[in-house]
Amino acid sequence: MVRVVLMNPKFEGNVGFIARLMANFGYNDLALVDPVSIEDEARMYASQAEYILDNACIYNSFEEAVQNIDTKIATTGIPGVTDSNHIRMPYYTPKELKNQLDGYGGNIALIFGKEDHGLPNKIIKKCEIVTSIPTSDRYPVLNLSHAVAILLYELSDIQKTDISVPNQKEMKLIHNRINQILQLINHPKHKKQKTKLMMKRILGRANLTKREAYTLLGILKNTIKKIKQNKTK
Amino acid sequence: MVRVVLMNPKFEGNVGFIARLMANFGYNDLALVDPVSIEDEARMYASQAEYILDNACIYNSFEEAVQNIDTKIATTGIPGVTDSNHIRMPYYTPKELKNQLDGYGGNIALIFGKEDHGLPNKIIKKCEIVTSIPTSDRYPVLNLSHAVAILLYELSDIQKTDISVPNQKEMKLIHNRINQILQLINHPKHKKQKTKLMMKRILGRANLTKREAYTLLGILKNTIKKIKQNKTK
Repeated sequence: MVRVVLMNPKFEGNVGFIARLMANFGYNDLALVDPVSIEDEARMYASQAEYILDNACIYNSFEEAVQNIDTKIATTGIPGVTDSNHIRMPYYTPKELKNQLDGYGGNIALIFGKEDHGLPNKIIKKCEIVTSIPTSDRYPVLNLSHAVAILLYELSDIQKTDISVPNQKEMKLIHNRINQILQLINHPKHKKQKTKLMMKRILGRANLTKREAYTLLGILKNTIKKIKQNKTK
Repeated sequence: MVRVVLMNPKFEGNVGFIARLMANFGYNDLALVDPVSIEDEARMYASQAEYILDNACIYNSFEEAVQNIDTKIATTGIPGVTDSNHIRMPYYTPKELKNQLDGYGGNIALIFGKEDHGLPNKIIKKCEIVTSIPTSDRYPVLNLSHAVAILLYELSDIQKTDISVPNQKEMKLIHNRINQILQLINHPKHKKQKTKLMMKRILGRANLTKREAYTLLGILKNTIKKIKQNKTK
């Protein structure tokens, strides 16, 4: 399942266009976070895809809009430029994203920011994967609905498999155990946030299977145990 | 060089959006055939890409708009369904089109029809290549500017080579000689138009080099000579 999440869209026309694009490429699940009021203009632009607007869910916060999502994909027109910035790096082009998601069994959300502003860092940090559409340096800013068009087009033929993926609780446990190890090995406190985000990016791109997650959880658990044993000796 | 040709666009907003998309993906050459009057609304939607609108050429006919173009690509939301219809068949998806054009040295035009109507058969027949974006059966009709977004995005990184391509005169001569042969071998008259279009599609997809075109011209010439010799014997 692919959900389209629009954060604070301010132009009705864009919401309508995006509903139409979703119908064009076979998507159904539209989530709006604190949007402009959806009235006649949005319906006009949605054209025959009014049903997508009718079924759209409106939320007050990002967290509510992605509650049952396994992989959250942040879209941005401003990708990172250095490897040391884990917020927007490394990022995928839409083609790379498609290859990455082919065969993935989890629930995906594509997150789009407000017109003119894009997604703020605090939302991008909460996403496992970052994607950016390659554009010309002269005028790199795509209109929102055209960015959606390109991503929905590119992802419209991804194939899902039945391979189980770890749920959010299990992923959270993995990250908790990694953080525990970081603490145990005295990883510098000032690098903590950066390293946590780096791990989120790495595991986000890795698309763990449930089986892999369990194995990893075991390894992390035993690592922690071992470190603690050594300490008490 | 890739030219974007809009046939009779009727909404200013679309023309503006398309100018912006061209700037986003590094294109410059916009041709408008008998368009709506380009006023403030188009400029607003073009945003920082007003220079594309300022430099756009306005034509009265399709022929004028594609005068120096080697390969004309018709875009359509209604591709052919049977092999026997050479007007809209075979067609390329945008990805296939990109692969096809990679390394091509000639001038290309992407031709888009009027909103709601698309390109008529009489224009599609004049194009060497047909492309169609795969969409959902439930609502297959893309908005014009979103169709442009997807094609410009997909073609934005095609690589040009220096390999010479035949000019329009040379291609016309090839087709003339083929038609001459069809006549000499008594190809049924009622199939003539269909076969001519089929040859246009085949050679359009083949992307002949200039060298290949010359060799082909020689072969066709000698074939015609041979048939005529046999006749007089």
